[in-house]
Amino acid sequence: MKIAIAQLNPTIGDLVGNAAAIQTTAQQAAHQGADVLLTPELSLCGYPPRDLLLDPSFTEALETALQQLEANLPPQLHVLVGTVQLNLDTLAAGGKPLFNTVAHLYAGQVQQYFHKRLLPTYDVFDEDRYFAAGRDPNLLDVGACQIGITICEDLWNNADFWGKRSYAIDPVVDLVQEKADLIINLSASPFCVGKQELREAMLCHHAQHYDRPLIYVNQVGGNDDLIFDGRSVAVNRQGTVIARAQAFAPDLLLLTYDPHTQDLQPSRVEPAVTDVNAEIWSALVLGVRDYAQKCGFSQAVLGLSGGIDSSLVAAIATAAFGSDNVLGVLMPSPYSSDHSIQDAEDLARNLGMTTVQLPIAPAMHTYDTLLAPLFAGTESGVAEENLQARIRGNLLMAIANKFGRLLISTGNKSEMAVGYCTLYGDMNGGLAAIADVPKTRVYGLCHWLNQQKMPELGRGLGVIPESVLTKPPSAELKPGQVDQDSLPPYEVLDDILYRYVDQHQSSQQIIEAGHPPELVHRIMQMVKRAEFKRRQAPPGLKITDRAFGTGWRMPIAAQLTKHPENIHLEFFAK
Amino acid sequence: MKIAIAQLNPTIGDLVGNAAAIQTTAQQAAHQGADVLLTPELSLCGYPPRDLLLDPSFTEALETALQQLEANLPPQLHVLVGTVQLNLDTLAAGGKPLFNTVAHLYAGQVQQYFHKRLLPTYDVFDEDRYFAAGRDPNLLDVGACQIGITICEDLWNNADFWGKRSYAIDPVVDLVQEKADLIINLSASPFCVGKQELREAMLCHHAQHYDRPLIYVNQVGGNDDLIFDGRSVAVNRQGTVIARAQAFAPDLLLLTYDPHTQDLQPSRVEPAVTDVNAEIWSALVLGVRDYAQKCGFSQAVLGLSGGIDSSLVAAIATAAFGSDNVLGVLMPSPYSSDHSIQDAEDLARNLGMTTVQLPIAPAMHTYDTLLAPLFAGTESGVAEENLQARIRGNLLMAIANKFGRLLISTGNKSEMAVGYCTLYGDMNGGLAAIADVPKTRVYGLCHWLNQQKMPELGRGLGVIPESVLTKPPSAELKPGQVDQDSLPPYEVLDDILYRYVDQHQSSQQIIEAGHPPELVHRIMQMVKRAEFKRRQAPPGLKITDRAFGTGWRMPIAAQLTKHPENIHLEFFAK
Repeated sequence: MKIAIAQLNPTIGDLVGNAAAIQTTAQQAAHQGADVLLTPELSLCGYPPRDLLLDPSFTEALETALQQLEANLPPQLHVLVGTVQLNLDTLAAGGKPLFNTVAHLYAGQVQQYFHKRLLPTYDVFDEDRYFAAGRDPNLLDVGACQIGITICEDLWNNADFWGKRSYAIDPVVDLVQEKADLIINLSASPFCVGKQELREAMLCHHAQHYDRPLIYVNQVGGNDDLIFDGRSVAVNRQGTVIARAQAFAPDLLLLTYDPHTQDLQPSRVEPAVTDVNAEIWSALVLGVRDYAQKCGFSQAVLGLSGGIDSSLVAAIATAAFGSDNVLGVLMPSPYSSDHSIQDAEDLARNLGMTTVQLPIAPAMHTYDTLLAPLFAGTESGVAEENLQARIRGNLLMAIANKFGRLLISTGNKSEMAVGYCTLYGDMNGGLAAIADVPKTRVYGLCHWLNQQKMPELGRGLGVIPESVLTKPPSAELKPGQVDQDSLPPYEVLDDILYRYVDQHQSSQQIIEAGHPPELVHRIMQMVKRAEFKRRQAPPGLKITDRAFGTGWRMPIAAQLTKHPENIHLEFFAK
Repeated sequence: MKIAIAQLNPTIGDLVGNAAAIQTTAQQAAHQGADVLLTPELSLCGYPPRDLLLDPSFTEALETALQQLEANLPPQLHVLVGTVQLNLDTLAAGGKPLFNTVAHLYAGQVQQYFHKRLLPTYDVFDEDRYFAAGRDPNLLDVGACQIGITICEDLWNNADFWGKRSYAIDPVVDLVQEKADLIINLSASPFCVGKQELREAMLCHHAQHYDRPLIYVNQVGGNDDLIFDGRSVAVNRQGTVIARAQAFAPDLLLLTYDPHTQDLQPSRVEPAVTDVNAEIWSALVLGVRDYAQKCGFSQAVLGLSGGIDSSLVAAIATAAFGSDNVLGVLMPSPYSSDHSIQDAEDLARNLGMTTVQLPIAPAMHTYDTLLAPLFAGTESGVAEENLQARIRGNLLMAIANKFGRLLISTGNKSEMAVGYCTLYGDMNGGLAAIADVPKTRVYGLCHWLNQQKMPELGRGLGVIPESVLTKPPSAELKPGQVDQDSLPPYEVLDDILYRYVDQHQSSQQIIEAGHPPELVHRIMQMVKRAEFKRRQAPPGLKITDRAFGTGWRMPIAAQLTKHPENIHLEFFAK
C-alpha cells in the first residue's frame, strides 16, 4: 500500500487556493500510484485560522469547499483533508461549537470524520477557544491496514517520554488498544530551534514503545509570526527514521506500507539540518517570503544603518525577494560615523541591492526648530534620540506607501526585550524579521552566513562586511554612543533574558546562576517597562520556544511585586 | 449575619498594594460589624494577570502574600480572597498547573480553598491557558448559613436563561443540591454596554428559579483594554435587587442575611445607570484614569484637530486627569481649515486645557524636499497624506517623551475597522481612548455631554463647540477632503460594521438587511486589509461585545475566500 505525504503550504482562509493545491497534489500522488494521501492539520483553511473560525460564514464556506473537493479528487485515492465540523451537541450538552477535524474523502465523497482529541491551549495555541475535544479514538480501515489517526497535539502526551502528563487521556494508547497497525499524525507544528530533534526522538520513542510504524505530516510555510518547517517524517516499528520530507519547502513524499511485515519500507530521507544557524536562516527566509507573498507584496524596503541587525535582515530579504526587489535606505545623521555609511554601502554591493541615501539632518533641524519654544531649557535626551529614529521610520514608511513595498523592521530580540528600540521609529514595519533572534545569535548567523556560498545572495562568501562584525554595536543617536553604555555585554544580557523569558526563571535563580543582583533586577524591570512597545510591534518571526508574539500575553498597566523574599519586608511597612 | 462586599480596584501584579487594600477594607468592614468580607475574583493579583501566571516566582509570591495577609486580618472576620493554588495532580493526571482560587481566611489562617469550575476561553478570556477546572461544589459553612461559592463564569451556565448550555456542568445546580442557603459569586466581569442589565436579569432569574438569595461581587477599575464597572449586586430570594454598589468606583457595601427568613434584607441600592452615554462616559474616564495611574502617568497630551474625535477624547482626558494636566497640541497644515483651529481653541478654552500650536508645513516641506528625487514623477497620494499624520505623531511623541506625559490617541472604532487612520501617525499613543466607540456613538456622546453639567470639566453645558458637531468630518489631509469621499455615511458604515464585527453576520445576511452588495464586500475587504494596522495599535478601551483588542485575534497574511455562494463558481475555474 502506497501512502503519500502532501507537505503543503496553505494560505490562511484561501479555501479556493488551498483546495486547488490539495487537488493538484492528489492528482500527482495518484499518478505515482498512491492509495492514500495525507495532508496537514486544517489543510483546507491553513493553520492557524484564528478568529476566522468564529464567523459562521467561514465554517459554511469550509463545508462548501470540502463538498467541491470531494467531487474533484481521484476517486480511487483515499484523501485525508483537514477541516472543521460542527459540534451538534453544543446546544444541549455545552462545549465549543466546532471540532478540529480530518475528513476522509474517497470515491467522490466524505466517508468519515475524525476529531482532534487534545487541544493545545498555551503559547501561541488557542484551540480551547474554538474547539471541542473529540471523544473517540480515530480509526480508518483501508483494507490492507488499520490506520490510527491523530491530529498534532494528540501525539504529544506520552507520559513516559515527557516525564509528566499534560492531558488526562493519551489518544495513542487508545489507538494501540484498538489495534491500529500504523499511526499517522496530521500536524501543523510551528518551528522553533531544536523542535525537529524533539519530534523525531518522540516519534522514535512511540514507534519502539508500541512496536508500530508512525507517519508524521507537517504543514510548511510562514503564517504571520509562525513558521512551519515541514520535515514530515516516517518511522518504522524499530524506531528508525525511514523517510523525511524537505525542510522549509513543500514536498510530496511517497511511502510503502508492507502488510506482511506490518511496517513501512525505507524511502527518501532528506538530510537532517544539523547546523542551528542554517536552520534559523532557512526559517527566516521562508517566513519573510511567505508573509510578503500572502500579503501581496513582491518588493521590500528596509533601513540600512551599517549595523549588524540591518545587515542580516538585508541578506534575509535578498534571499526572500531577490536582490532586484530589495531597496536599502541609508539615513545618516550628524551622529552617524563614516564607517556606518561605508559598511552599509559595502553590504548592499555584496548583496546586489539598490540603495538610496536620505540624510536626516534637515528633518532633525526642522523638528528642533518647531519644538524649540516648547523644549526651551530642557536637556537633549531620549525625546531627541527617538525623533531621529522616527524621522527614519517616517521616510521608510513613505517609501513603502509610495511604491507598495513591504517595510521589514530590523530589531533583534534582545532590544525588543529591554526596549532598546524606538516605537514608531526603528520598530516600524509590516514584519519584524529577527525580532525573536537574540543579539548574540545575530552575530552567530552573520559569521555563519559569511562562510556560505549562496546563489540567492549577490555573491558567495563574506557578504557581511568584516567591520560590521567587529565594531562595537551602536544606535548612533548621540555622539560616541555605544549599546554597552546602557546595556551589559550582550553575552550577559542574552543569558539573563534567556533564563527569564524562555526558562521562566525567577530573579533568585538567575542571581544564583552568577549574575549580579542589581543587574538582574534592572533587566527584569526593563523587560516589564518595554511591554507597551512590544504591544505595538509588528509580527515578529518566531524561532524560539518563547517569542514576544501571539504567545506572549502580558499586562501593561501592571506592577511587578519584587520577589517573594521581599514581600515580608515591605508588606505592612506601608 | 453581616456580609460586606469589597468592590476593589487592584493593580495587576501589585501583590503588596492589593493585599494592603484588602487589609484596610477588612478593618473597615470589621469596624462596621461585618462577619464576612467578600472580595472579587483573583483580588490578590488583580484580573486578568495573563502570562504573569506562567512564572513560578509569581505564583510563589502570591502564596507568600496570602500567608502575610492571613496573619494581618481581623481574626473574627471571614475573608474570601481571590488567588491561585497549585494543581498538585498535574504531573500524574495531566491538566493545567493552577486553579483559579478563592481562599477562606479566618482566625489568622487559611481555612479552605475553593476552585473555579467553569473557565471562560473566548473573547478576551484565556482561562484554559492557565487553569484546571475545579471538580467539586464549593461550600462554606459560617454557622448561620451555608454559603455556596461560585467564581465569575461559574454563574453563567444557566441553560434555562440562555436557551443553551455553554458547559457540561452547572455549578449553581450542584450548590442547590448541596443545600446552599445563599449563593455568592466573586467576579471580575468586564464592562460592555448592556452588560449590567444582563447580569441583573440573570441574577434575578437564578434567585427566583432556585428560591435563594444571591450576592454578586465585581472588581472595579481599568486594566489595559478592560474596564471593570463594579456595580456589585445582591438579590433576595424573590428576585428583587436589594443592594447595588457604585458604578465605576470602589465601594464597600454591607448586607444583612437573616437566618430565619433565609434571605437578605434590603440595603443600599445605588441607582442603575440608565443612559448608555452616561455609562460609556464613566467607563472611558475610568479606563483612561486607571491606565495612566497604574502606568505611573499623571499628565496627558493629545492632538487637537478641531474634529469630533479629538474633542471627545480631550473631554475624557480632562475628566480623568484634571484640566491642568492635559496638554492639547494643535498641528495645522496648509490643508487645515481655519474653523478647525478655531474649534480646537474653543474646545480647549471650554475645558480649561492648555494648548500649543505647532504648524507642520515646515516639516512637510522638509520631507517633500528629502524625498523629491525618489518620488519624482509620482502623484501626491496616500504616502504624502500619511506623512502629515506621521509628522503630527512624531511631534506628539516628542512631547510625551520629553515631559513624561501619556499620549492618548483619538481614533474611533469605525476608522479602526476600515483602516481610515495612519499607522505611526494618528494611531500613536499609549492608550486609544475611543477605539471601541463607533463614530455615530462619538456624536451621541458629544451631544449628551453638551447637556451635562460636570464639575470635573472646565465649565458646564456645551463643552463641545457647536460647529464640531455640525461640520462634515474630515481628516484634512488634502484640500477639500471629507471622510465621505472614501466612506459611506457613518450611519450606514456603522450598521454594516456592527453586523459584521459584533454580530458575526455574513455578507449575505448584511446584504439581506438592505445594504448594497458592492458596498458590503468593499467594507469587508477594508476591515480585512486593515488588520496589520490594528495589530500595531495601542490598547483600546473595550466598551462593546467585540472590540479590536485582546479578544480580536485575526490572521494578517490571509485571504478571504469570497463567501460560500461564490465558491462553486471559482473553484475549478483555476
